[in-house]
Amino acid sequence: MEYVTIVIMLALTQYVWFSIQVGRARGRFEVQVPSISGNDGFERYFRAHQNTAERLVVFLPAIFACGYFVNSLFAAAMGLVFVAGRGLYFRGYTDPDKNRSAGFAIGESANILMILSTLFVTVTSLL
Amino acid sequence: MEYVTIVIMLALTQYVWFSIQVGRARGRFEVQVPSISGNDGFERYFRAHQNTAERLVVFLPAIFACGYFVNSLFAAAMGLVFVAGRGLYFRGYTDPDKNRSAGFAIGESANILMILSTLFVTVTSLL
Amino acid sequence: MEYVTIVIMLALTQYVWFSIQVGRARGRFEVQVPSISGNDGFERYFRAHQNTAERLVVFLPAIFACGYFVNSLFAAAMGLVFVAGRGLYFRGYTDPDKNRSAGFAIGESANILMILSTLFVTVTSLL
Repeated sequence: MEYVTIVIMLALTQYVWFSIQVGRARGRFEVQVPSISGNDGFERYFRAHQNTAERLVVFLPAIFACGYFVNSLFAAAMGLVFVAGRGLYFRGYTDPDKNRSAGFAIGESANILMILSTLFVTVTSLL
Repeated sequence: MEYVTIVIMLALTQYVWFSIQVGRARGRFEVQVPSISGNDGFERYFRAHQNTAERLVVFLPAIFACGYFVNSLFAAAMGLVFVAGRGLYFRGYTDPDKNRSAGFAIGESANILMILSTLFVTVTSLL
Repeated sequence: MEYVTIVIMLALTQYVWFSIQVGRARGRFEVQVPSISGNDGFERYFRAHQNTAERLVVFLPAIFACGYFVNSLFAAAMGLVFVAGRGLYFRGYTDPDKNRSAGFAIGESANILMILSTLFVTVTSLL
């Protein structure tokens, strides 16, 4: 599970980097604590980060279970796809001229493949 | 841990389904990206989903630790209770005529039972 | 991993306690469901809780991997630092006269140390 663990740590590092960018955006767009709404520029950073937290809630148990029950190299590869998709998503959401859809679809496809393959292996092992 | 893993994958699938419904609600109630406030109908979907993410943060480590240290069938059963509670919660929150309290209480009771039983077993094992 | 598990359960218990305080603040500041904005007092509780969920997304996989690959007592100690930092953060954010920065820095330093030490041990084990 070393490869899976390394990819998980990369995903967490990327997320911490997104968090730092939200803090910087709060200063740059001059949004006072505790407010999160009212400024389109800041809201894009805030929402791109929050959505990443919401997808990590799926990603983290899915990659761990998939690496353990299905195949650790497959899970690590899906993890890299998720990280790449999230990078695209964050850039697409924070730039009003770009689009967040492709990045979202790439990352969530990796999540869904890990969930379905884990369900297949665990359910068939009980039959 | 196969039963625990299957229940975790069911909880993640339910959550992905909630995510899809938030995306649809954004279109149906015509709420522009990145805004999340100002429309009661959309906010109900958004908040019901966000609250589920916030409870999964407790559920996922709790069911894993409870399944490992306490009993995997007990943890899997508590996981099904959590999923049922969350289904009730989502329906209760997104419908202005219904109530979200019962679903919340059911899901969170399962979480608290898993935390307390895990604490009991791990602490007593060290005595 | 008993010590790591006990510290994780403590962190979840602290977070459930924060959740209860958000619910109470909704009543005290009279903020109607599903609204989350418009009242500074409530927003401070809401945001302090939400930010804790966002940091637990890093903390939970980091302490588990660090406890498994690096050292379980080191991970448990970092976990106690995280819980202490989050307690300071929550008090600092919900009180308009205090500051949330120190608590955030303490908790996140523990997270980053766990990520970096896990990366170091897992990457060098593959060389």
